[in-house]
Amino acid sequence: MGAVLHVCMTCRAGQPVPEGEMCAGTRLHAALVAQGVPDGVTLRPVECLSACDHGCSVALSKSGAWSYVYGRMTEADAPEILRGAALYAATTDGVVPWRDRPVIFRKQSLARIPSLEPNDV
Amino acid sequence: MGAVLHVCMTCRAGQPVPEGEMCAGTRLHAALVAQGVPDGVTLRPVECLSACDHGCSVALSKSGAWSYVYGRMTEADAPEILRGAALYAATTDGVVPWRDRPVIFRKQSLARIPSLEPNDV
Repeated sequence: MGAVLHVCMTCRAGQPVPEGEMCAGTRLHAALVAQGVPDGVTLRPVECLSACDHGCSVALSKSGAWSYVYGRMTEADAPEILRGAALYAATTDGVVPWRDRPVIFRKQSLARIPSLEPNDV
Repeated sequence: MGAVLHVCMTCRAGQPVPEGEMCAGTRLHAALVAQGVPDGVTLRPVECLSACDHGCSVALSKSGAWSYVYGRMTEADAPEILRGAALYAATTDGVVPWRDRPVIFRKQSLARIPSLEPNDV
């Protein structure tokens, strides 16, 4: 089953955005698209992940699995974000072994949320 | 449809836990139980919400709705956490009008994650 990689498109990462320029979140999204999204991962822009104090954020979720939110992401992180997203997509419960996770995922986790249980749905 | 209020039970809120005493997350969970969980809300303990730099955390989720994570919660916040959880449970999309949200939810959001779309599941 595939995973969804949500990217906050409105993030300014605490910086002013000069007129006519893209904000940091939009640039991150463009970098992910340019890099090429791996099989099993859907890239989905989001207006706000409410993590505005922590720079550009991305969230990974899939049905029946833990969801994860990571902050302080930059365009330079696009390859590692996509590598981590592919590893996440290949799990059933969303939990990628610690040693395999990109360092940016190990160090820049903002939160994770358990999946709902069958009786909750 | 009901909501689930996840509470991190292992949170130490950056403090040492003397032997024989409960950690901050366990105390927060006990305060929520003591307060009485409103109809439509299921309280569920979790081992870790990976938000360890932001004190005690809680997460709200429900099927087809945005999920939210809030940090720096204390036992004193139990009534407002439960009030916010009840308001969340009463929505269909998880979005409680801003003016109605508890101040701790407005100011201490760590992140929110969109629900999956029907085709993702």
